[in-house]
Formats: sequence, C-alpha cells, structure tokens
Amino acid sequence: MSKTDISPRVRAMLPRGFADRDAADIAAADAMMARIREVYALYGFEAVETPFVEYTDALGKFLPDQDRPNEGVFSFKDDDAWLSLRYDLTAPLARYVAENYDRLPKPHRSYRAGWVFRNEKPGPGRFRQFMQFDADTVGAASPAADAEICMMAADCLEALGIARGDYVIKVNNRKVLDGVMEAIGLGGPENAGRRLTVLRAIDKLDRLGVEGVRALLGAGRKDESGDFTQGAGLEEADIERIFKLIDWTGYRDEQISTGTSIPIDRVVSDDTEVNREARKHLSNSGIIHSLVLSFGWNRLAQRGIRELQTIADLVESCGYSDRIRIDPSVVRGLEYYTGPVFEAELTFLREDEDGKPVSFGSVGGGGRYDGLVARFREDPVPATGFSIGVSRLLAALRAIKSPIVAAAETPGPVVVLALDRDDKSMANTQRLVGRLREAGIAAELYLGQGGMNAQLKYADKRRSRVAVIQGSNERGDGSNPQVTIRDLKLGAELAKSTKDRADYLELRQRAQFTTPEAELVERVREVLARR
Amino acid sequence: MSKTDISPRVRAMLPRGFADRDAADIAAADAMMARIREVYALYGFEAVETPFVEYTDALGKFLPDQDRPNEGVFSFKDDDAWLSLRYDLTAPLARYVAENYDRLPKPHRSYRAGWVFRNEKPGPGRFRQFMQFDADTVGAASPAADAEICMMAADCLEALGIARGDYVIKVNNRKVLDGVMEAIGLGGPENAGRRLTVLRAIDKLDRLGVEGVRALLGAGRKDESGDFTQGAGLEEADIERIFKLIDWTGYRDEQISTGTSIPIDRVVSDDTEVNREARKHLSNSGIIHSLVLSFGWNRLAQRGIRELQTIADLVESCGYSDRIRIDPSVVRGLEYYTGPVFEAELTFLREDEDGKPVSFGSVGGGGRYDGLVARFREDPVPATGFSIGVSRLLAALRAIKSPIVAAAETPGPVVVLALDRDDKSMANTQRLVGRLREAGIAAELYLGQGGMNAQLKYADKRRSRVAVIQGSNERGDGSNPQVTIRDLKLGAELAKSTKDRADYLELRQRAQFTTPEAELVERVREVLARR
Repeated sequence: MSKTDISPRVRAMLPRGFADRDAADIAAADAMMARIREVYALYGFEAVETPFVEYTDALGKFLPDQDRPNEGVFSFKDDDAWLSLRYDLTAPLARYVAENYDRLPKPHRSYRAGWVFRNEKPGPGRFRQFMQFDADTVGAASPAADAEICMMAADCLEALGIARGDYVIKVNNRKVLDGVMEAIGLGGPENAGRRLTVLRAIDKLDRLGVEGVRALLGAGRKDESGDFTQGAGLEEADIERIFKLIDWTGYRDEQISTGTSIPIDRVVSDDTEVNREARKHLSNSGIIHSLVLSFGWNRLAQRGIRELQTIADLVESCGYSDRIRIDPSVVRGLEYYTGPVFEAELTFLREDEDGKPVSFGSVGGGGRYDGLVARFREDPVPATGFSIGVSRLLAALRAIKSPIVAAAETPGPVVVLALDRDDKSMANTQRLVGRLREAGIAAELYLGQGGMNAQLKYADKRRSRVAVIQGSNERGDGSNPQVTIRDLKLGAELAKSTKDRADYLELRQRAQFTTPEAELVERVREVLARR
Repeated sequence: MSKTDISPRVRAMLPRGFADRDAADIAAADAMMARIREVYALYGFEAVETPFVEYTDALGKFLPDQDRPNEGVFSFKDDDAWLSLRYDLTAPLARYVAENYDRLPKPHRSYRAGWVFRNEKPGPGRFRQFMQFDADTVGAASPAADAEICMMAADCLEALGIARGDYVIKVNNRKVLDGVMEAIGLGGPENAGRRLTVLRAIDKLDRLGVEGVRALLGAGRKDESGDFTQGAGLEEADIERIFKLIDWTGYRDEQISTGTSIPIDRVVSDDTEVNREARKHLSNSGIIHSLVLSFGWNRLAQRGIRELQTIADLVESCGYSDRIRIDPSVVRGLEYYTGPVFEAELTFLREDEDGKPVSFGSVGGGGRYDGLVARFREDPVPATGFSIGVSRLLAALRAIKSPIVAAAETPGPVVVLALDRDDKSMANTQRLVGRLREAGIAAELYLGQGGMNAQLKYADKRRSRVAVIQGSNERGDGSNPQVTIRDLKLGAELAKSTKDRADYLELRQRAQFTTPEAELVERVREVLARR
C-alpha cells in the first residue's frame, strides 16, 4: 500500500562535502564545546543564536571564494526574495544586533556555536557544512575589546589542555596593509576589487608559499591542474613593499621567544641571515617598533600600529605576551574586517600528506568588523569577534590524545538477550530491562531476529560491557528464576588467553556467572564497576 | 577603505518563519534536551547525526503540505543534481542506515536532535526552521520495538516533570485504516493519490473538526479565506465507514481511565449518548475488542489489530497501560508510515487564542516506516521511531512552570566598571577582572563609552548580581588600593523601599561597601552567595 512499492530504487549517498557524525564524534565535540562555553561565559559572554537562513542581501558577499555559483553561498528563491544559508556566524550576528539594537544592552557580548555552509567545489577534506564557535563584542570601539577576545581565545585553548608554547594567537591590523595599499596607489573605492585580490593572495601565503603569492600579486598563477588565476597586476617594486610587510618576520612554523640583542633598526633594515634569524625572536614591542620604522610614514598604517600598541600593552599587563604575538603576515581572507585581525595557530608538529612534519596550523581566527552592522544602520557600530573551527580543533585534540576527547567515549548499554520470543517470555525479559533502567543503568532488549551468537556479537559491536541472559535453564519452573551475567570485556580477554593460566577457572567464573534474578541490578552494577 | 562605504543600506530583518534564540531560550532548550538524552541513552540508544543537506531524491517527498514550491522543501541546484534541506530527521536516517548498512550493528538504535526545514507558507506561529529530537530503531520488525518507543516517550515526558495523567501516548496502526480504504475501493497503486488525500484529511480532525474533515473526504472544503481544497470525492456511505473508525472513541481533550461496565458490543454498535460516554472509558483491550468487532473482517485491518494487541500486552506487562492508549483516530500526516503510529499528547488545559480552554495537544509523534530504508535497498529493512517537537514541548514546560526551565536561567556576569580610561587604569581594571575569572567567577570589564550610571544600567540589563567599582577614590595613592562592591539586586530592592525602615542603614551598607582590593574575590563571592 505504501508509495515505496512504486518508487524506483534510490542511491543511498551523502552529497560530497557533507558528513555524518557518530556517537564518538558527537560526544567529543560536545565535551570540547562545553569547555569553550565555560570560558566564554567566564568572560561575561552569553548565548545568542540566529537561524540558518537569512535574506541573501542581509548576509552580503564577503567570502574569499568567488568563483562558485552565488559566490560560494547556497541560495534559493522565496516568494519574492532570495534566501541563503549562512556562510558564517558573523554576518547573521550583525543582522541580529541591528534588528534588535534598541533593546539590547550595549556593548552586546554573545557567543554561539553553529553550523555554517559554503558552496565550495567539493574535494577531499573540503567540507561544505562545518561548525564554528564564535564570541563577539558589538558596540565597543576600544582595542581593549580586541585584546580581551585574544586572551579569551588563549584561555580556550589552555582549557582544552593545549599547553602553553604549543599555540600562538597572532594579531595584526588590516589598517597597516590598507596603508601600504594606499601608498602603492590602490586606495579609494575604485580599487576595492584589486585590494580584495591582494588580500586574498596574501591570505594564501601558508598554502602557496612566497612564490605563489608573488605570482598572484603580479600577473597571475597557474595551479597544478593548469587552471589560471588572474593576478592583481602589481609592479615588482609594489610587490616588494607588500612583502616587506608580510614576510619579514619569517617565524612561521616555529616557536617564539622574546628578546633580541641586535639593534632593532639593523634587524629590520638589514637583510642578512643573522638578522633574519633575529627577527624570529623579536618581542611584541620590537615588532611594533619595526613596523613604525617601516610604515609609520603612512597615516592609516600609523593608526593601525597605534591600535596594535594598545593591544600589546594590555596583553603584556595581563601576562599574555608569551602567547599573543603581533604578526604582520596575518590578514584573514574575509572581506569585512576593518582593523585588528587574529589567528589562533597550533605550533606543535603533525605530518602532512607527504609525511613531512608541519605545524598543525590555524584552528580559528577573527577580527574587527566595524562596517558590518553599519550596513544596516545610519550610525557606525564597532564590533570585534573570534571564531573557532570546531572540527579542526577537535582533530588537534585527537592528535594530542586529549583526555577531554577520550573521556567523552561511553560504553554501550547492557544488552539483555532475547532467547524465547513468545509473548510471555518477551514480557518477562522486557521487565528485566525495565529494572536495570529504573536503577539508572542503560539497558536494552535485543530486538532483532538473530540467535544467541548473533546477539552477543551485536553487544560487542555496540561496545557493551555486560550481557544478561535468561533462557529456559535460568527460568526453571519459575519459582526461583535466575539470570546469567556475562562480562563481555573480560570474556573477550579470556578468549584470547590460554587455558593453562593458574587463575583461568576463577577468571572464567568472573566472566560469566548465574545469579538469582532478584540480584540482577546489584550484580550488573558490580561488573560495570570492574576496572 | 571597506566595501561597506559603497553599499546601499540593507534592511536588518529575519525572513518570516525564522527566529533568533536568546540565552534564556537556549539554556531552557538545552536543559530539556539533556533530560531527554538521558532517557534515550538509558534505553540503549546512541547519538548519530546527519548533515542538513541531502540529495533531493534521497529525501523523497512525504510531506503533508504539497501546495508549496518543491512540495514544501527548500531545494537548490548543485553542479549536476538537486540538493534539499532536510524536512525531518527520519528520511536522512533512512539514507544513513542504507549507506552504512553493512558496518552498523543491527538493530540500529540511535537518537539525534536537529533543526529541520519546511518551506511552508509563512504565518503567525508557523516556523520554517524548527528542532526535532528523534529516536529510532532500524532493523527490528517486532511490535516490541514500537512498544518500547512508546514507553520511552512516556518516560521522557515524566523525566521532564510532566505528571502522569497530564499526558497520553496514543497508538494506532495505519494498517487498520488501510484495510478500511481497501474495503471502500481505494486499494492498489492506482489509488495512492486518493488514499493520501484521505489520510491528510483525517490528520486535520483536531484542527478542522468533524464537519471540516467530512467535507475534505467528500467534495471539498472552502476555508475562511475562501480558498477551496479539493476533496477525496468519497460517497457518503464510505465517509461513514471511515468515521466509524476514527471518531468512535470521542475522548479527545479528556483524561482517560480504564474499565467499562457496559457490554462492549453495545458500546461500539449503539450510538446513544450513554454509549458514547462509555467509549471514553474503554481500556486498551476494550478498544481492541471493538476494533475486531468493527473491522476484523478485513485481512489487512486484522493484521494491524493483531500488532496493536501485541503492543498493548507489552505495555500492560510493563505497567504503562494507564499512559499508553490505543486510539483509532491517530493517523499522522506523513506519508511514509506503514504500521503502528504514535502521538504524544499533553492533556492538561491551556487557553487558545479566543481564551477558550483546550488541551495542550501534541508534542511529538512517530511510527513505523518499514518502506523508507527499502527505497535504497533490495531487501526490506523494518524501522520505527519517535520525534519530539522541541519548541512545542518547551512551551509546555514553560506553561507548567517546570523547574527544569527555571533552573536553566543564569544571572549575568560581575561587571567591573571602567571609570578612568587611560591605558594604565584600564590595565589595572582588566587585572581585577582577570582575578575574578581565575577564581571561576564570570566577569567582564565594561567596554563601552558610557559613564557610571550608564554602566550600572548596563549591568542591570545583563541581569548581573554584582558591580565592582574602582575609581580614583578607591585607588588613593596606590599604596592600599580599595574596591567598591555593589549588590545590584539588593540595591534595586532598597531603591524601592522607604528610608524609614529600621534596618535601612545596615542594608545600605550591605548593598554597597568598600573593601581592600586584596579581598575582592572573597567579598564578591559572599555577595553572589546571598539568598
């Protein structure tokens, strides 16, 4: 009678770029996010969530990937307007604050975890749905808000057991780069497109290296597949000026310490090997000093450097300057940032696809987006925020074998076997299950068609610790019903060991024993408590 | 320099049918879902989640609302195929199990909470994104699986503090209705469309009443707005036969008890007022008996009745028959159900839009969907599940002032006021905040531009309990810095009371006092612990 009788067979397949999550994934992510939530709450942020769908207009188009349909956004036509799935949590937050501006306490400080969607070209490891965990301060113009966000990001990583020295929060300011671009003739609204091309080229420094970025700043670049990407078309001298900003520190993939014994102006201006090495060890104030020397003549860059100075001072006075580092190479690919930008990078090593050791890399980032709420309102509304990439960070916790991830894994339920399937026996067995549940022990009645062996195998696949068996032997004449309790873990170990162990019989008795039904809960509890 | 300078102003507005969630909403829903998760886990279900997007084909078209674009589903074209946002969690689970069939332990028992999307005509109270919390058993054909799901649903409601007697889990079987439809000539694949029209008409019994459903089963119905809905075109006698099935119990909106003293065949066949009243008090076996008398001659209906009998027996032997009730009026609007269907209904009263008392109504439902996994596979895979409507249930918990919801609300952070904004003072104040956080107390530095009054008002809006003040008075010459601690709740109460209370001065001293900076954490803790 159902429609399925007449439907053609459909292929069971997830679209590429999407993933299912099993119990272990979910538990690990939940445990991780609970820690992050605690830190965000400790900093006075409160939960606010927006829906997945917004007017396409309200989201704007700020994604780095523009070579995809709808510029990387999933969109669909509603009755009279276009709707889109959010591509991040920042643009919807800007809409939320603008829409509720008058009733919200200001500054507005909130956090949210949520799935976002990118209509990217599917490929290995490229997800089109992924989770971010953001915190934002809207309505605070002070760099103190940026400094706080950075310190909170550091606290999050430490709360997750990532050791100091194994991570760095890198801070830069878009205004410095904007100043340099102004100086090389890319100022003004008419050059917005080229500025964007420059920005996105720089953001690929990690992935493409210096030569790749040089190509993208110049004529263009052909990738391995032969696809050509049009470059920004800058002159060689202008490319040099940009590289003077972004590539001078050179301490990617290395740990950072403070202090230098070489005079700062020599370190900055003189491109010897010794000085290049020394730059890696510059303190925050050393880096800021060098930025002043190199770019202080441009007014916009100067403003940016001054903001960095304030952030560095606050970070210093709160004792975070070993972990929060000024780094002029950070730009962030999203278009809406207007001031300080941040990147949380894990510096410990992992192997890349070719087995080469590389640092784990970015697990989050953010920055100041003073223009985003202003898109909706007459008056400017400054804002800054930070976004954690949940699955990247989870992968990192797995890589360091974090106890948070391990503790999240729970064993399967007690499985009560179904041996006789007449209504009366089933009702009896269901009652045994009910007694375990009433005692707070996760338990289930096997509901499939398999025999005893299939049922024990099922319990094993569920990672269950205990199976409970009540067949006709155990029931007897019903006057004194028994149950057999099986320790599946011990049973599996015994199966592998040899029978000539001195304690074999004793262990076998521990691994499976029969006990009066009345003692079911008590004895199951004992077995669950073993080890 | 940013793109926003050249963008036209955009309107900050959520699309209709979507909603933001604030901290109280999120905390209440999280607390509620944590309880549900505990019950699901106790029953041996484990978490599995699927993504939001599936191939449109894989989801199928089973929604009751078919008068919308894409039949109520949000869809978009990918490179070479159509993708859709999931409209429930059942269809994606069927895809998941089919795709991972060989490696999954079977029966597969899993739960998931997640947002689903319906492209409905937006209207008041109609959401296009809402959350469901499902549990499913896939690979178990036995009615024991259905009985278990119903008992678990009951346990969930009780775990949430909904009292026994304030809810009922109604159980019916689609096969009974299918048998009746077969009998009136609506069998066979060629009548699939008309059967669906009948099904959807019956599912509206609650909303449209008997006359509305009669019209939809017959020629059709004109609604208040004048829109005409085409009916199923049944003869009057056939409509009667359907009503004999669905409307005979008549105990909607009332509490149910067991036992009847009138002979069952008279109660069923004889339509006097006394008998109608008696039907409300039929026990599960009385209802099943009457179904046998009325529809037992049809083989399909008979099979359905037999399954209901097995469910009723298991429910009885586990002591749930006061809460899980056979009810032939339940059909559920979704097309994919093939056997037992369930509906969780809250029976306590609330006021409807016109102030009339009505029972709270459905907060979830489900049923057996044996054909859904089979869409992907050669061999049949039986399945059954239950879905809780999270926001409906949350509204119910709010209506009964559940302590679970109330306990989820947390006060705002300690707000440390920013009075002097020079770098040194800010760094000092930031350090005070840091000390509170280190002690595990949620705290923040006010980062806006407002003066002292604006800052206290901000703390109030954040529902903070404590404000900390350190101005030049408190700092003094720096040798013995002090802080002023303000109990915002007590302060607000005092502001409302009269000064001639005997204990006014003492209370004022408690509401705001100055203390050495070294005692900050200790004294703030004291104030937070008050009441």
